[in-house]
Amino acid sequence: MNHEMSTGWGLIGASTIARQHMVDAIRAQSGHYVQAVMSSKQERADTFASECDIPAAYDSVDALLADPKVQVVYISTTNELHFEQAMAAAAAGKHVLCEKPLALRQEDAIAMVQACRKAGVVMATNHHLRNAATHRKMRELIQQGAIGKPLFARVFHAVFLPPHLQGWRLDKPQAGGGVILDITVHDIDTLRFTLNSELVEVVGMSQSASMAKEGLEDGVMAVMRFDNGVVAQIHDAFTVKHAGTGIEYHGELGSLIGRNVMTQQPIGEVLLRNADGEQVVPVAHESLYARGVAAFCDAVKGRGEPAATAEDGVKSLVGALAVVNACKTGARQAITYQTI
Amino acid sequence: MNHEMSTGWGLIGASTIARQHMVDAIRAQSGHYVQAVMSSKQERADTFASECDIPAAYDSVDALLADPKVQVVYISTTNELHFEQAMAAAAAGKHVLCEKPLALRQEDAIAMVQACRKAGVVMATNHHLRNAATHRKMRELIQQGAIGKPLFARVFHAVFLPPHLQGWRLDKPQAGGGVILDITVHDIDTLRFTLNSELVEVVGMSQSASMAKEGLEDGVMAVMRFDNGVVAQIHDAFTVKHAGTGIEYHGELGSLIGRNVMTQQPIGEVLLRNADGEQVVPVAHESLYARGVAAFCDAVKGRGEPAATAEDGVKSLVGALAVVNACKTGARQAITYQTI
Repeated sequence: MNHEMSTGWGLIGASTIARQHMVDAIRAQSGHYVQAVMSSKQERADTFASECDIPAAYDSVDALLADPKVQVVYISTTNELHFEQAMAAAAAGKHVLCEKPLALRQEDAIAMVQACRKAGVVMATNHHLRNAATHRKMRELIQQGAIGKPLFARVFHAVFLPPHLQGWRLDKPQAGGGVILDITVHDIDTLRFTLNSELVEVVGMSQSASMAKEGLEDGVMAVMRFDNGVVAQIHDAFTVKHAGTGIEYHGELGSLIGRNVMTQQPIGEVLLRNADGEQVVPVAHESLYARGVAAFCDAVKGRGEPAATAEDGVKSLVGALAVVNACKTGARQAITYQTI
Repeated sequence: MNHEMSTGWGLIGASTIARQHMVDAIRAQSGHYVQAVMSSKQERADTFASECDIPAAYDSVDALLADPKVQVVYISTTNELHFEQAMAAAAAGKHVLCEKPLALRQEDAIAMVQACRKAGVVMATNHHLRNAATHRKMRELIQQGAIGKPLFARVFHAVFLPPHLQGWRLDKPQAGGGVILDITVHDIDTLRFTLNSELVEVVGMSQSASMAKEGLEDGVMAVMRFDNGVVAQIHDAFTVKHAGTGIEYHGELGSLIGRNVMTQQPIGEVLLRNADGEQVVPVAHESLYARGVAAFCDAVKGRGEPAATAEDGVKSLVGALAVVNACKTGARQAITYQTI
C-alpha cells in the first residue's frame, strides 16, 4: 500500500477490542491503514505493534498525535481517559472514533463533541450493534409495520465476562467500571436505533453478586420508556454463563425475536411471529466493526454520517448514567439532554 | 354420589374460571360436589346452574351461605367483592378458597385471614401456577443446586386478553382492574414459591396502550429483589398476541428455561442449560386446578396445607400493590408485611 496516498490511523489504547476487531476492520477499508499504537506502557505498545505489524508504537497520546501520518484516532482506553484523549486529538486536528461510553459525565462528552465540531474533524461512537445485519433488519421490519404499533422491547444481554477481561470493569469505579457503563450503554443505543425513538425515563435495580467490588454492579435489570410509547426491559450481567443473548420487540400485530444477537460476531437469527405463524427472516451477515469503520471512513471523506454519531454516544451515555442513578437512588430518572 | 356423606361447594361468582376450570376440579375430588352457584343476577346463576348441572342457584351471598349443604365456598367475583364475601363466609363457618388478589388492600386481606382463623375454617388462595408440574420441577431443580446460586429470574406473561374477558379488568379501577392485580400477582406468587424466598423491593413502569381506560394499565414491566439476592424482571400485558409466555432462572452454574408455562393449561416445557449443554427436563403434567383443589380438600380434612395458603395470598397482594405504587410514584417500594 502506498501510505502517502492513504489515511493513517492511530490506536489510543492497546486493547483487546483493538486487537480482536478494529485492526482488521480498519485494514478492510481501501485507503486506510494502521500507522501507530499507543499504550501508557511502551512495552505493551511495542508488543502490540510487533504482533499486529504496525509501524509505530508510542507511550503517550502526545507522541502519537505528533505523528504526521496519523490522521484518525481510535480510542479504546479505560473509560475515564476518553475525555482528555479525545480533546487532545481534536486539538491536533485528528478525526476521532471513540469507544463507549464516550466519557463518565454528560458535560465531558458534550465538550468532546463540541471540540471536534470546532476543529472540523469527524467524531463518532463505536457502537457496533447498530451495524449488525440482524438489528438493521429488525429496524427495517418495524418501520415497515411488520409488528404493527410496537409496544414492548426486551433486551437479554447477561453474559459471562471472560477471565482476560476481568480487570478494571469489576473494581475501578473511577475508570467507569460496572456492567451498566459497559453493556447497558449498548442496549440503549440499539433500542434508540431500532425503535427510532428517544429515551424518556428509566427505573432499575442492580446486583453485586460475585465479581464486582468497590460498589460496582455486575448485574442490572432496568425498565425504560421511549418517546414512541414503547416500554423496554433490559437484563445485563457479567456473571451468568448460560443465559444466551437476545432482543425482542412485541407489537399489536406481531413479535420480532432476535436470538443470539447481542454480540460482537456477525451471527444470530431473526424470527417474525404473527397471525400467519412464525418465520425465520433471512439476514445477510457482515462484520459489525468493518461496517462501522466503513461508514466512519465515508464520513471522514464527507460522505454521509457515521453509523453511530458522536451525538448518539452522548445519548447512550446519558441513558446509562440515568440507569446508574436509578439503581442508586431507587427513583425514576427522567432523561434530559443538554444542548450540544 | 351420596351427597349426605359428601362436602358441598358453593360458587360465589358465576365466572369464566369457575365454569372452565373449577367445577371440573371440584368434581375430580372424591367426596366433593358443587351444591350451589351464586350471581347477583339470578338469571345468570340459573343459566350457570343449568348448564353445569348444579342443584341450587342463588342471587345473594347470604342465600348461598344459608344453604346447609354448602360447607366450602369458592370466591371468583370481581376483586373488590372478595373481602366482604370471605368475611361473611367465615362468619357462617364455611371454608374459603378465594381467587387472587384476595382483596384490594392489605388490611382487608389480613382481616379475611384472621376471620377464617378465628372461625376455625381453612382459607386458601387460588394461585394455580404453583400447582404446575413445570414450576414444581424448576423449584425442585433450583433447590437441588442444578443452576448453582440463583442470580436472576425473568417472567414473560404478556398475553392478549380474550374478547370475552375484556370487561371490568380494563375499565373498573374500583373493582381492582388492570394487569398488575390480574397477572403480576401470579408472577409474584410463582417467584416466591419457586425461589423459596420473600420479596424485598420493587420498581416498575406501566403502560396504557390501547385497551385499558380510567387510569388502569394494560401492560407493565417491573424489577424485583428477593431476600436470597435474586433480581427478577417481569413483563405482563393484555395487549400482545404473539409474545408467548415463559419463565427463566439464571444462576452461576446454569439456567432453567420454562417455555409456555405461564398458563392455566397443563402444558409447557422445562429446559436445563449448563456446562453439559441443553437438555429437556421431563415433567409429568397434571391439571393445575385439580391439584390445587385436592390440596385444599386435604387441608379441610386436617391433612397438610393448601398449595397456596391465605398468607401466600396476602403476600402476593402486597407485592402487586407495591408494583402499582412503584409505577404510579416512580419510587422503589420496600415490601413490608403487617403481622397476621
